[in-house]
Amino acid sequence: MSPLRYRLLQRLRDDGPVSRAELAARLDVPRSRLAAELDTLTDDGLVREAGLAASRGGRRSPLIELDPGLRLAAVDLGATSLDVEITNGSLETVAAYSEQVDIGEGPRVLLRRVNDLLAKARADGAYDRLLSIGIGIPGPVSFRDGVPISPPIMPGWDHFPLRELLGRDHSCPVAVDNDVNIMAIGERHGGVARSVDTVLFVKIGTGIGCGIHIDGAMFRGPDGCAGDIGHIQVDPDGWPCSCGNTGCLEAHFGGAALTRDALAAARDHSSPALAARLAEHGTVTPLDVAEGAAAGDLACIALIRDGGNRLGVVLAGLVSFINPSMIVIGGGLAGLGHVLLAEIRSVVYRRSLPMATGNLPVVLSELGPRAGVIGAAVLASDLAYGQPL
Amino acid sequence: MSPLRYRLLQRLRDDGPVSRAELAARLDVPRSRLAAELDTLTDDGLVREAGLAASRGGRRSPLIELDPGLRLAAVDLGATSLDVEITNGSLETVAAYSEQVDIGEGPRVLLRRVNDLLAKARADGAYDRLLSIGIGIPGPVSFRDGVPISPPIMPGWDHFPLRELLGRDHSCPVAVDNDVNIMAIGERHGGVARSVDTVLFVKIGTGIGCGIHIDGAMFRGPDGCAGDIGHIQVDPDGWPCSCGNTGCLEAHFGGAALTRDALAAARDHSSPALAARLAEHGTVTPLDVAEGAAAGDLACIALIRDGGNRLGVVLAGLVSFINPSMIVIGGGLAGLGHVLLAEIRSVVYRRSLPMATGNLPVVLSELGPRAGVIGAAVLASDLAYGQPL
Repeated sequence: MSPLRYRLLQRLRDDGPVSRAELAARLDVPRSRLAAELDTLTDDGLVREAGLAASRGGRRSPLIELDPGLRLAAVDLGATSLDVEITNGSLETVAAYSEQVDIGEGPRVLLRRVNDLLAKARADGAYDRLLSIGIGIPGPVSFRDGVPISPPIMPGWDHFPLRELLGRDHSCPVAVDNDVNIMAIGERHGGVARSVDTVLFVKIGTGIGCGIHIDGAMFRGPDGCAGDIGHIQVDPDGWPCSCGNTGCLEAHFGGAALTRDALAAARDHSSPALAARLAEHGTVTPLDVAEGAAAGDLACIALIRDGGNRLGVVLAGLVSFINPSMIVIGGGLAGLGHVLLAEIRSVVYRRSLPMATGNLPVVLSELGPRAGVIGAAVLASDLAYGQPL
Repeated sequence: MSPLRYRLLQRLRDDGPVSRAELAARLDVPRSRLAAELDTLTDDGLVREAGLAASRGGRRSPLIELDPGLRLAAVDLGATSLDVEITNGSLETVAAYSEQVDIGEGPRVLLRRVNDLLAKARADGAYDRLLSIGIGIPGPVSFRDGVPISPPIMPGWDHFPLRELLGRDHSCPVAVDNDVNIMAIGERHGGVARSVDTVLFVKIGTGIGCGIHIDGAMFRGPDGCAGDIGHIQVDPDGWPCSCGNTGCLEAHFGGAALTRDALAAARDHSSPALAARLAEHGTVTPLDVAEGAAAGDLACIALIRDGGNRLGVVLAGLVSFINPSMIVIGGGLAGLGHVLLAEIRSVVYRRSLPMATGNLPVVLSELGPRAGVIGAAVLASDLAYGQPL
């Protein structure tokens, strides 16, 4: 059982203002114990009394709420984009900023850009003091140590002391996680996976990764690198992968693989839609494949179906292994939409045990590009409110 | 945090007799609270005082121990064997029985045979009254409901009310789980995985299954069928599988697949050792392959290596996904030994992230054929001692 402090603050965050009586009932604690905890939290400036609850016949009870002045920072640093939001203690957005970045510029430059946006938010009056910061980055992270670990697309970031430096700059605790995990946390907090305890969130971007919730908690694995499904083998005789092995899922599907295959289909004219796009723009993108498929180009449809099939086989294996209650597909390539989803579903349902898939929804992310920043805010608040880690 | 009652009984089970002072310290509870709980447990007949602890200078403190009269039943029902043990509350064997069975005889016959062995144990004086029963069966189980669910090799068992009938016959609570899970529980309690929190236990028998511990707890999945890795696809153009799909792991490795391949190698004389065995005995078994390999027969070595490779690829994917701290290989075919283990290790280490495998032991089961019955006893005691499920 988590400590009362965390459960109480989490309740106020997610349910809004509530009377003492109601709060004691929901948390299942004696009112005297609740009163003592609320005194401490009031002294700490985290909660306050706010007006009176609607009467239910007896004496009206004062409402308890999170102090409206609480401020959290949520940062979603991607390979090419930086999103920063300032929220109140209930995770409502107070200010939001987005910029294009290039993760290849290295950690010092990007840390400065994060700090510049946070300074701008402060100058705009979004906050005076931050309770905590949650940040997601596009590579493997040691969650325990708050540092990136050999991130393949982030040169110069290996073991960069991100948590320590951000914490020092803003005098508050910081949680660092990978981009897929914060999206998974966001989707489970406020998206399609709300209240689902065991769920796989699959991000299809340039690469492919998976965020795992087990029994209601984010599962990162003993070494913090659980969910790295992009390097599961799908074909022993397949494409070489950037990791040095062959036939990895990521070498066959995902933004990079799809761009490679789309270019080939454009060059050999097996796809009239992609050939036209190549002639016009000098290049083709996964978005072109999606548009080609929507317009009925058979080669584009085949590319998406083949990718969905590859991913579906991997997910079918994970369904047999972990028996989740839901699979959520997110990330940029979730935009490939229902052709992709139909293929994934078809493979998962065909290849997994009936017992595991009898009631298994495979659905698209609801929060789309905002999943990450919402998850980072959840992470920040969990840290500030004292979630046991 | 688990209830004090369970933590206390579990301590006494695993650590043996201990003084009140020591117990209070280990459980981190005030002595007054401990005393009240011990009074209740003494009244319930579960614990008692037993002699005095060795003096450490002051007054000698009485030792607390589980009542030595407690009795649990552990049942491991396999496809061809039935093992029953009666243990005391500390899981020490009081009596043990084994019989050959045929799971195809159906649930009524096999339930009677379980009851016959339990009646024999009672007649032998092994128990008067059972606190609880733990039983493992060779097929998928709804742990929550205590019934088999569409078990492929157990005709007539689907939804057979095993827990209810056994409980009624012996007037005690019963826990029903699958054979792989009880082996995993046994190995983590008293075998090579002791004190490891996130472990995969892989059973290679006729088929292949996996028992999963996550963060110290058995993970069965929302529908109770987690760990069914035998039907993960290893080759889209592979062998047809009994499940109706093609290219499942089990269709390529495991007792059934190895027997098929060994027979082929004997018939086409690609394996002199197997050909000789076939001529002599009229059939070949996985044991013959193990012996052929040990004697240097190249085709036998190749069969084991190929199987280890198939399993290794699947395990590498699961390592990337769940990032366990240990993999344990058990079941009858673990007897294929170090050729098998070397191949599995080679593939897992080559194909998984360095971060995930930097410190990942892949080892053989220590408990061998006793893993199941030990796990069933653990399960029985957890149930009797009030583990939160």
